[in-house]
Amino acid sequence: MDVTGWQTQLRKGAAELVVLSLLKDQERYGLDILRHASGNTGVLSDGTLYPLLTRLEREGKIVGRWALEDESRNPRKYYRLSQEGAALLVEMTRVWGDFSIFVSSFLDGPNSEVEPGRRSLSRKAG
Amino acid sequence: MDVTGWQTQLRKGAAELVVLSLLKDQERYGLDILRHASGNTGVLSDGTLYPLLTRLEREGKIVGRWALEDESRNPRKYYRLSQEGAALLVEMTRVWGDFSIFVSSFLDGPNSEVEPGRRSLSRKAG
Repeated sequence: MDVTGWQTQLRKGAAELVVLSLLKDQERYGLDILRHASGNTGVLSDGTLYPLLTRLEREGKIVGRWALEDESRNPRKYYRLSQEGAALLVEMTRVWGDFSIFVSSFLDGPNSEVEPGRRSLSRKAG
Repeated sequence: MDVTGWQTQLRKGAAELVVLSLLKDQERYGLDILRHASGNTGVLSDGTLYPLLTRLEREGKIVGRWALEDESRNPRKYYRLSQEGAALLVEMTRVWGDFSIFVSSFLDGPNSEVEPGRRSLSRKAG
Protein backbone atom coordinates (compact mmCIF):
# COMPACT_ATOMS: atom_id res chain seq x y z
CA MET A 1 0.00 0.00 0.00
CA ASP A 2 1.34 3.45 -0.80
CA VAL A 3 1.03 6.43 1.48
CA THR A 4 -2.00 7.76 -0.34
CA GLY A 5 -3.94 4.52 0.04
CA TRP A 6 -2.96 4.37 3.64
CA GLN A 7 -4.01 7.94 4.26
CA THR A 8 -7.39 7.16 2.72
CA GLN A 9 -7.82 4.28 5.12
CA LEU A 10 -7.02 6.47 8.12
CA ARG A 11 -9.39 9.15 6.93
CA LYS A 12 -12.24 6.74 6.56
CA GLY A 13 -11.71 5.62 10.10
CA ALA A 14 -11.64 9.16 11.39
CA ALA A 15 -14.45 10.76 9.43
CA GLU A 16 -17.29 9.36 11.50
CA LEU A 17 -15.64 10.34 14.76
CA VAL A 18 -14.99 13.85 13.52
CA VAL A 19 -18.56 14.34 12.33
CA LEU A 20 -20.10 13.03 15.54
CA SER A 21 -17.81 15.21 17.63
CA LEU A 22 -18.73 18.30 15.63
CA LEU A 23 -22.39 17.63 16.41
CA LYS A 24 -21.71 17.09 20.09
CA ASP A 25 -22.85 20.43 21.38
CA GLN A 26 -24.78 21.92 18.55
CA GLU A 27 -26.79 21.37 15.42
CA ARG A 28 -24.92 21.87 12.20
CA TYR A 29 -25.70 21.68 8.50
CA GLY A 30 -23.46 19.90 6.01
CA LEU A 31 -21.45 22.82 4.77
CA ASP A 32 -20.85 23.97 8.32
CA ILE A 33 -19.47 20.53 9.22
CA LEU A 34 -17.34 20.54 6.11
CA ARG A 35 -15.91 23.93 6.92
CA HIS A 36 -14.83 22.75 10.34
CA ALA A 37 -13.55 19.36 9.28
CA SER A 38 -11.62 20.03 6.13
CA GLY A 39 -8.13 20.71 7.34
CA ASN A 40 -5.21 19.69 5.22
CA THR A 41 -5.55 16.09 6.33
CA GLY A 42 -8.55 15.77 4.03
CA VAL A 43 -10.50 13.70 6.53
CA LEU A 44 -13.66 14.96 4.89
CA SER A 45 -14.58 16.33 1.52
CA ASP A 46 -18.04 17.03 0.17
CA GLY A 47 -17.77 13.78 -1.74
CA THR A 48 -17.40 11.84 1.49
CA LEU A 49 -19.39 13.94 3.94
CA TYR A 50 -22.85 13.70 2.41
CA PRO A 51 -22.89 9.91 2.02
CA LEU A 52 -21.59 9.69 5.57
CA LEU A 53 -24.36 11.95 6.93
CA THR A 54 -26.94 9.86 5.08
CA ARG A 55 -25.58 6.67 6.58
CA LEU A 56 -25.33 8.09 10.10
CA GLU A 57 -28.91 9.27 9.91
CA ARG A 58 -30.10 5.92 8.57
CA GLU A 59 -28.29 4.19 11.42
CA GLY A 60 -30.01 6.46 13.91
CA LYS A 61 -26.84 8.08 15.19
CA ILE A 62 -27.81 11.53 14.04
CA VAL A 63 -31.15 13.19 13.44
CA GLY A 64 -31.74 15.60 10.62
CA ARG A 65 -34.32 18.33 10.15
CA TRP A 66 -34.87 20.63 7.24
CA ALA A 67 -35.00 24.34 7.93
CA LEU A 68 -35.84 27.22 5.66
CA GLU A 69 -34.09 30.17 7.16
CA ASP A 70 -34.33 32.68 4.43
CA GLU A 71 -36.66 32.71 1.44
CA SER A 72 -33.82 33.46 -0.87
CA ARG A 73 -31.85 30.44 0.21
CA ASN A 74 -32.31 26.76 -0.32
CA PRO A 75 -33.48 24.83 2.72
CA ARG A 76 -30.73 23.48 4.89
CA LYS A 77 -30.67 20.18 6.64
CA TYR A 78 -29.49 20.49 10.22
CA TYR A 79 -28.17 17.49 12.07
CA ARG A 80 -27.87 16.76 15.75
CA LEU A 81 -26.70 13.72 17.71
CA SER A 82 -29.27 11.16 18.77
CA GLN A 83 -28.92 9.61 22.22
CA GLU A 84 -27.37 6.60 20.57
CA GLY A 85 -24.98 8.80 18.64
CA ALA A 86 -23.96 10.60 21.81
CA ALA A 87 -23.19 7.29 23.53
CA LEU A 88 -21.26 6.13 20.49
CA LEU A 89 -19.23 9.32 20.49
CA VAL A 90 -18.18 8.74 24.09
CA GLU A 91 -17.08 5.22 23.26
CA MET A 92 -15.29 6.21 20.05
CA THR A 93 -13.50 9.03 21.83
CA ARG A 94 -12.21 6.58 24.40
CA VAL A 95 -11.10 4.09 21.74
CA TRP A 96 -9.46 6.84 19.71
CA GLY A 97 -7.55 8.10 22.75
CA ASP A 98 -6.10 4.67 23.52
CA PHE A 99 -5.39 4.06 19.87
CA SER A 100 -3.62 7.29 19.10
CA ILE A 101 -1.50 7.11 22.24
CA PHE A 102 -0.56 3.58 21.33
CA VAL A 103 0.47 4.36 17.77
CA SER A 104 2.24 7.56 18.71
CA SER A 105 4.23 5.71 21.35
CA PHE A 106 6.09 3.96 18.54
CA LEU A 107 7.00 7.21 16.90
CA ASP A 108 8.37 9.27 19.75
CA GLY A 109 11.87 9.81 18.57
CA PRO A 110 14.55 7.14 18.31
CA ASN A 111 14.66 3.98 20.38
CA SER A 112 13.54 4.81 23.83
CA GLU A 113 14.55 3.12 27.04
CA VAL A 114 10.90 2.33 27.53
CA GLU A 115 9.46 -0.46 25.46
CA PRO A 116 7.39 1.04 22.64
CA GLY A 117 3.73 0.37 22.98
CA ARG A 118 4.05 -0.20 26.69
CA ARG A 119 4.48 3.34 27.80
CA SER A 120 0.96 4.39 28.36
CA LEU A 121 -0.94 1.15 28.24
CA SER A 122 1.08 -1.07 30.53
CA ARG A 123 -1.40 -0.77 33.33
CA LYS A 124 -4.21 -1.92 31.13
CA ALA A 125 -2.48 -4.45 28.90
CA GLY A 126 -3.92 -7.85 29.64
CA MET B 1 -20.73 0.88 11.59
CA ASP B 2 -20.39 -0.19 15.20
CA VAL B 3 -17.42 0.61 17.37
CA THR B 4 -15.85 -2.78 16.73
CA GLY B 5 -15.91 -2.38 12.97
CA TRP B 6 -14.55 1.09 13.32
CA GLN B 7 -11.77 -0.07 15.59
CA THR B 8 -10.83 -2.72 13.04
CA GLN B 9 -10.55 -0.05 10.38
CA LEU B 10 -8.29 2.08 12.55
CA ARG B 11 -6.14 -0.91 13.40
CA LYS B 12 -5.64 -1.83 9.78
CA GLY B 13 -4.47 1.67 9.08
CA ALA B 14 -2.06 1.64 11.97
CA ALA B 15 -0.60 -1.85 11.69
CA GLU B 16 1.79 -1.07 8.84
CA LEU B 17 3.06 2.07 10.52
CA VAL B 18 3.64 0.26 13.80
CA VAL B 19 5.53 -2.60 12.15
CA LEU B 20 7.75 -0.31 10.11
CA SER B 21 8.50 1.81 13.16
CA LEU B 22 9.47 -1.25 15.19
CA LEU B 23 11.99 -2.19 12.51
CA LYS B 24 13.42 1.29 12.36
CA ASP B 25 16.54 0.73 14.39
CA GLN B 26 16.89 -3.01 14.57
CA GLU B 27 16.12 -6.34 13.03
CA ARG B 28 13.27 -8.21 14.62
CA TYR B 29 11.53 -11.54 14.11
CA GLY B 30 7.76 -11.91 14.02
CA LEU B 31 7.14 -12.87 17.61
CA ASP B 32 9.37 -10.06 18.80
CA ILE B 33 7.32 -7.56 16.76
CA LEU B 34 4.13 -9.05 18.08
CA ARG B 35 5.29 -8.79 21.66
CA HIS B 36 6.00 -5.11 21.23
CA ALA B 37 2.92 -4.28 19.23
CA SER B 38 0.14 -6.12 20.98
CA GLY B 39 -1.11 -3.67 23.54
CA ASN B 40 -4.75 -3.64 24.46
CA THR B 41 -5.63 -1.74 21.30
CA GLY B 42 -5.16 -4.98 19.35
CA VAL B 43 -3.43 -3.22 16.47
CA LEU B 44 -1.68 -6.48 15.69
CA SER B 45 -2.37 -10.13 16.37
CA ASP B 46 -0.55 -13.14 14.99
CA GLY B 47 -3.39 -13.51 12.52
CA THR B 48 -2.72 -10.08 11.06
CA LEU B 49 1.03 -9.72 11.56
CA TYR B 50 2.29 -12.58 9.42
CA PRO B 51 0.25 -11.71 6.31
CA LEU B 52 1.35 -8.11 6.79
CA LEU B 53 5.04 -9.07 6.98
CA THR B 54 4.66 -11.18 3.85
CA ARG B 55 3.08 -8.27 2.01
CA LEU B 56 5.64 -5.73 3.19
CA GLU B 57 8.45 -8.02 2.09
CA ARG B 58 6.84 -8.62 -1.29
CA GLU B 59 6.46 -4.87 -1.73
CA GLY B 60 10.14 -4.40 -0.94
CA LYS B 61 9.57 -2.33 2.18
CA ILE B 62 11.22 -4.82 4.48
CA VAL B 63 13.87 -7.45 3.88
CA GLY B 64 13.79 -10.82 5.62
CA ARG B 65 16.53 -13.32 6.34
CA TRP B 66 16.33 -16.69 7.98
CA ALA B 67 18.59 -17.37 10.93
CA LEU B 68 19.23 -20.57 12.83
CA GLU B 69 20.40 -19.46 16.23
CA ASP B 70 20.15 -22.60 18.19
CA GLU B 71 19.96 -26.15 16.90
CA SER B 72 17.15 -26.92 19.26
CA ARG B 73 14.98 -24.12 17.91
CA ASN B 74 13.22 -23.57 14.67
CA PRO B 75 14.82 -21.05 12.35
CA ARG B 76 13.61 -17.51 12.78
CA LYS B 77 12.99 -15.00 10.08
CA TYR B 78 14.43 -11.60 10.90
CA TYR B 79 13.18 -8.49 9.16
CA ARG B 80 14.77 -5.12 8.63
CA LEU B 81 13.65 -1.99 6.78
CA SER B 82 14.72 -1.55 3.17
CA GLN B 83 15.74 1.91 2.02
CA GLU B 84 12.29 2.28 0.50
CA GLY B 85 10.69 1.17 3.74
CA ALA B 86 12.71 3.68 5.71
CA ALA B 87 11.60 6.50 3.40
CA LEU B 88 8.02 5.33 3.68
CA LEU B 89 8.23 5.32 7.45
CA VAL B 90 9.36 8.94 7.47
CA GLU B 91 6.42 9.92 5.28
CA MET B 92 3.89 7.86 7.22
CA THR B 93 5.12 9.28 10.49
CA ARG B 94 4.57 12.78 9.19
CA VAL B 95 1.09 11.95 7.88
CA TRP B 96 0.18 10.22 11.12
CA GLY B 97 1.31 13.20 13.16
CA ASP B 98 -0.85 15.62 11.20
CA PHE B 99 -3.73 13.21 11.22
CA SER B 100 -3.75 12.40 14.92
CA ILE B 101 -3.40 16.05 15.92
CA PHE B 102 -6.26 16.90 13.61
CA VAL B 103 -8.63 14.26 14.93
CA SER B 104 -7.69 14.85 18.54
CA SER B 105 -8.35 18.56 18.11
CA PHE B 106 -12.05 17.75 17.86
CA LEU B 107 -12.03 15.81 21.06
CA ASP B 108 -10.30 18.14 23.46
CA GLY B 109 -13.00 18.67 25.98
CA PRO B 110 -16.21 20.63 25.42
CA ASN B 111 -16.69 23.36 22.89
CA SER B 112 -13.56 25.36 22.76
CA GLU B 113 -13.18 29.01 21.92
CA VAL B 114 -10.88 27.93 19.16
CA GLU B 115 -12.42 26.44 16.05
CA PRO B 116 -11.99 22.69 16.14
CA GLY B 117 -9.68 21.37 13.48
CA ARG B 118 -8.03 24.72 13.15
CA ARG B 119 -5.95 24.74 16.25
CA SER B 120 -2.84 23.08 15.08
CA LEU B 121 -3.14 23.14 11.33
CA SER B 122 -4.21 26.66 10.61
CA ARG B 123 -0.81 27.69 9.34
CA LYS B 124 -0.82 24.90 6.82
CA ALA B 125 -4.46 24.75 5.82
CA GLY B 126 -4.75 25.68 2.17
